Amino acid sequence: MSNPINTAILGASGYTGAELLRLLENHPAFTITALTGDSQAGKPMEAVYPHLRHRQLPALVKHTEVDFSNIALVFCCLPHGTTQQIIAGLPEHVRIVDLSADFRLTDPANYAAWYGHAHQALELQKTAVYGLTEQAREAIRPARLVANPGCYPTCSLLPLLPLVEQRLIAPDSITIDALSGISGAGRSAKQGLLFSELDGGVSAYGIGHHRHMAEIEQLLAIAAGEAELTISFTPHLIPMARGMLATLHAQMASDTHVDAIRACLTERYAQEPFVTVLQAESPSTHQVRGTNQCVLSVHPGRRAGEVIIISVIDNLVKGASGQALQNANLMFGLPETTNLERTALFP
Amino acid sequence: MSNPINTAILGASGYTGAELLRLLENHPAFTITALTGDSQAGKPMEAVYPHLRHRQLPALVKHTEVDFSNIALVFCCLPHGTTQQIIAGLPEHVRIVDLSADFRLTDPANYAAWYGHAHQALELQKTAVYGLTEQAREAIRPARLVANPGCYPTCSLLPLLPLVEQRLIAPDSITIDALSGISGAGRSAKQGLLFSELDGGVSAYGIGHHRHMAEIEQLLAIAAGEAELTISFTPHLIPMARGMLATLHAQMASDTHVDAIRACLTERYAQEPFVTVLQAESPSTHQVRGTNQCVLSVHPGRRAGEVIIISVIDNLVKGASGQALQNANLMFGLPETTNLERTALFP
Amino acid sequence: MSNPINTAILGASGYTGAELLRLLENHPAFTITALTGDSQAGKPMEAVYPHLRHRQLPALVKHTEVDFSNIALVFCCLPHGTTQQIIAGLPEHVRIVDLSADFRLTDPANYAAWYGHAHQALELQKTAVYGLTEQAREAIRPARLVANPGCYPTCSLLPLLPLVEQRLIAPDSITIDALSGISGAGRSAKQGLLFSELDGGVSAYGIGHHRHMAEIEQLLAIAAGEAELTISFTPHLIPMARGMLATLHAQMASDTHVDAIRACLTERYAQEPFVTVLQAESPSTHQVRGTNQCVLSVHPGRRAGEVIIISVIDNLVKGASGQALQNANLMFGLPETTNLERTALFP
Amino acid sequence: MSNPINTAILGASGYTGAELLRLLENHPAFTITALTGDSQAGKPMEAVYPHLRHRQLPALVKHTEVDFSNIALVFCCLPHGTTQQIIAGLPEHVRIVDLSADFRLTDPANYAAWYGHAHQALELQKTAVYGLTEQAREAIRPARLVANPGCYPTCSLLPLLPLVEQRLIAPDSITIDALSGISGAGRSAKQGLLFSELDGGVSAYGIGHHRHMAEIEQLLAIAAGEAELTISFTPHLIPMARGMLATLHAQMASDTHVDAIRACLTERYAQEPFVTVLQAESPSTHQVRGTNQCVLSVHPGRRAGEVIIISVIDNLVKGASGQALQNANLMFGLPETTNLERTALFP
Repeated sequence: MSNPINTAILGASGYTGAELLRLLENHPAFTITALTGDSQAGKPMEAVYPHLRHRQLPALVKHTEVDFSNIALVFCCLPHGTTQQIIAGLPEHVRIVDLSADFRLTDPANYAAWYGHAHQALELQKTAVYGLTEQAREAIRPARLVANPGCYPTCSLLPLLPLVEQRLIAPDSITIDALSGISGAGRSAKQGLLFSELDGGVSAYGIGHHRHMAEIEQLLAIAAGEAELTISFTPHLIPMARGMLATLHAQMASDTHVDAIRACLTERYAQEPFVTVLQAESPSTHQVRGTNQCVLSVHPGRRAGEVIIISVIDNLVKGASGQALQNANLMFGLPETTNLERTALFP
Repeated sequence: MSNPINTAILGASGYTGAELLRLLENHPAFTITALTGDSQAGKPMEAVYPHLRHRQLPALVKHTEVDFSNIALVFCCLPHGTTQQIIAGLPEHVRIVDLSADFRLTDPANYAAWYGHAHQALELQKTAVYGLTEQAREAIRPARLVANPGCYPTCSLLPLLPLVEQRLIAPDSITIDALSGISGAGRSAKQGLLFSELDGGVSAYGIGHHRHMAEIEQLLAIAAGEAELTISFTPHLIPMARGMLATLHAQMASDTHVDAIRACLTERYAQEPFVTVLQAESPSTHQVRGTNQCVLSVHPGRRAGEVIIISVIDNLVKGASGQALQNANLMFGLPETTNLERTALFP
Repeated sequence: MSNPINTAILGASGYTGAELLRLLENHPAFTITALTGDSQAGKPMEAVYPHLRHRQLPALVKHTEVDFSNIALVFCCLPHGTTQQIIAGLPEHVRIVDLSADFRLTDPANYAAWYGHAHQALELQKTAVYGLTEQAREAIRPARLVANPGCYPTCSLLPLLPLVEQRLIAPDSITIDALSGISGAGRSAKQGLLFSELDGGVSAYGIGHHRHMAEIEQLLAIAAGEAELTISFTPHLIPMARGMLATLHAQMASDTHVDAIRACLTERYAQEPFVTVLQAESPSTHQVRGTNQCVLSVHPGRRAGEVIIISVIDNLVKGASGQALQNANLMFGLPETTNLERTALFP
Repeated sequence: MSNPINTAILGASGYTGAELLRLLENHPAFTITALTGDSQAGKPMEAVYPHLRHRQLPALVKHTEVDFSNIALVFCCLPHGTTQQIIAGLPEHVRIVDLSADFRLTDPANYAAWYGHAHQALELQKTAVYGLTEQAREAIRPARLVANPGCYPTCSLLPLLPLVEQRLIAPDSITIDALSGISGAGRSAKQGLLFSELDGGVSAYGIGHHRHMAEIEQLLAIAAGEAELTISFTPHLIPMARGMLATLHAQMASDTHVDAIRACLTERYAQEPFVTVLQAESPSTHQVRGTNQCVLSVHPGRRAGEVIIISVIDNLVKGASGQALQNANLMFGLPETTNLERTALFP
């Protein structure tokens, strides 16, 4: 093996940070050099995540304490909003995979509309690559800053983009109802996230105004060759810790049918290691728990011309830390699948 | 109190039978006289459902062992298909609330298409009343045979019917993604229903061909004044025991808007004891667990002209046994809410 | 019905407060006059607990805003420690069921040792009755202040007290391993209580030093006629919202055997409406969910002389709010079972 | 890498078979050559376990169809009872790790007493090594047949054996209350294992007569140098899919104390890769989900002389398939940790 690639995780005390540490175990190139967590600075990681006890990990420090001069790769798991200025302050030689939403939207006005404040790092924003790996692989390889996609966008765009690009579905007809495990809401102590508040029940949230819509619409508009595009998107929280399922509805182009839709996706993803198109059954999130897989199925709706697609991912892996590692592997010239070929944990 | 009304539950060993027994506890009029369960005949109920131990209940018998001459009311909780002949054989004086699907579809050809065999009690079928209480109250009162609606239809039709009737939404634009607790799949020992197969994951099923679609379409077509009508309906199984949430999408009529939709439903259900229309927040199934309530909310979609409605019920109560009791109360001239005013079990 | 008994719930925004409101629905005598919640004062209850929306309830106020002059009954659901001074300040005519731990321990030194500070209402403490209903019924009837037992003590003492009183088991041999649903830990926003932290896993806590031990030991010592007594008690949090199971081990007296143990408990509780002794099977918490029942079973251990008892309750009902209502019914001369005869919610 | 070691899994359609396949992914030496499942013979593995879709696995066959002449290693995941004759019929060159209970008990009379029939392969029984790896490593290396321990025995014996061997606890004082995830009950379609029957509740089972007691007692008796020994053991099923926690109580020898107990275990397992002794906190099963770890903690009981130990494993890994692989690695001269160093899946 060649020289290790020194790696820092900013915001390592959240779930996506912990998940990165799981996926980086025994990685042949990326060596964890620094872990930051401002509110928990000074603690060993095992105090924050006992399941990491056996790992030899650096203690948490404040991000201002990190010497970035010898760090080549940063995974940024900080909250939306605080991220942009911290990343803007990193030395030029550092390459970054940012798991926050800060660099995902390319239009500053669009960003300001959805996030309620002007972007603080506009020059940097222009250089960011939206890191949906299967769609942007060649742009990701040389990128300095990759904006890692949100979980809902990943789960939705993998099936939708090829169909919109090939004009097989009407882009303005897309309705997405998506179900997420609770870990997607993070590790902050909030009453609404307590076990007793969530176990045994289900609810929708962010109806008609969840921020991930903006990402989905941005990518679909580009694929459709349109200036803008509006979808219907409704997320739900269901009582499980991880996993995500999107049920996608669209109107097919007049001259196509469900088999052609399925064939398009099957062909598009035939060589992709992390996207599987089922030919008959529909997937369960159980099949992707702990893995970087997206598994899809394509079904005829009962209404004329409707296609229904079911897409599942693990929100913390392909929807966050797994795709981040996939992107980092690419950025550093490693096989994209390094440390990411895993069988799901079932049951 | 006047004379007790002798009541039998056919198929009392399933979840809807047990739920009826819970709801009938201390009912002022309905006295449980017979409980049937052919495969468990001879057992006391507490051997089948230990949580009913404290109740003074008759033991399970075969339905052929029941003397129906002194029975006035039958709740039929038998499986689809076997029900119709058994009900056809009941004496004329017995009034029936049937929780199976056997008498829900009025068109014999439609029944045969969805259930794969010709209906075996066509004359009786013609007399059945589809028992969505809030929609058919006056027809239910004098009915001899009430076809109790399915859980998905109840959860979907309560919000949709008034909107279709008043031409506020386009009936051919309706997309329903619905989430059900596992108890809806019954108590049969099937590998796919094991705890280890379901906990921590989610999947869709019956995509584009679930039988409850037929009920929903039948009722919506009548409301729309059309011969037939097609919707999009996709059910999902989520890891909780009871509860149901339907996310409904529709295109509004060109001259209406979301506030008018909400006002229509608010007004329609203002006097209804078991339907609540929220004015701001969206509901969780936690709010209806163990109750006969349907709670709705109305939201603007982001796509022009789209309305999104969230509707929740307890699949075993308003979606099955609770509505059955509501109907039976009506049929026997009792206050409709008898034994049904309950606060949800939360947490 | 006679005059309503005006009732206040102090600390109504916690789970035991909400559970009291569920159990008090349509209570024939107790009328809810005031609800307090200092941090949420001014909010309607439905903002704090949407599942109470349909109830006509007073809004939350600060406890200092309540006019106690017309209130006859107070349920106190405040946190341990703050309770004693607030109760000490209530007018003399008010009768109180206190669900906190503040008045459970009779020895001030013992209280100070377990709770880390001197008791602030020692005179009042002397008048409090420990409200394990089945054991102290006659003292509860006339009491002004009832200290409602903890959930673990209730679940453990109901089977243990008669056996210790009758010298059927050795009091210094008792080992209790108990499993609690998460709602027992309350509704405060703590990271350790998040869904994602608890679902799919289990842990012990408070090993060897949980405060409920003090209650159990106090009552057992009295029953044994000893000055003090030490038990082994280890609680666990398991991934369910409500329910509690205690597995109790003891060494039997040399001249007894398991059948005599079971017979003793069976006879002791034969007339009790809320304690059931099974003769063969062991209980599941499913059988008591939402009910005021304690269900027990008695089994031979494999080790010579050992008896194993399984005891289940709903931690929020018989372990808290249900027993509180049972006590209040007694205090006001009502049938003890008023509003408490309910079938469990299963599944 | 040297020649692959051809490996068969008998009974691959159960959870332990599937878990072996997860753990064997990319194993450097063991190559999966045959998978059997008599009732599912002819099916591809992905039809039985969709989460294994991406693996290149042989289809399921009947065990009589397997050519064992070129197979060096067999993992036997068949049900108890049928296993012994099938293993007895394997060619002499095949080495076996048996995950059933068939070869765990060395005394034929003891086997017959617990399993209700005479052992059918007594000669083979004499050669079997009880494969608790940390305790029997040297005997496992050359063994032809390893009887892989049960999950409860593994979780209990790892902490108890060193303490009994060193006379630090009284072997006849041991009380074990253990909690298991539902996957331990297997994948058979049984009503009692349905999601709706188990979610949200807890129960004990096999009280005083669970078969795993026999294993625990056998090993503890050897460690104590006694002919026989009796413990108290009570298992519980809790609503989670995988994970196991044992709460162990014992009386310490008169001249010892809890710190010495902890020090003994800490020293004993200091070099063991798969046993961790915590110095302060107690473990959650979350910390071992998907891993081969056993994590322990040692606590003072409140009763004089009592020590309480908490021990957690993943029942399907260290409690079954992980330990089986650990043993097979040893048997074939591979590093014991091969393919077993993994970070837990949390959350």
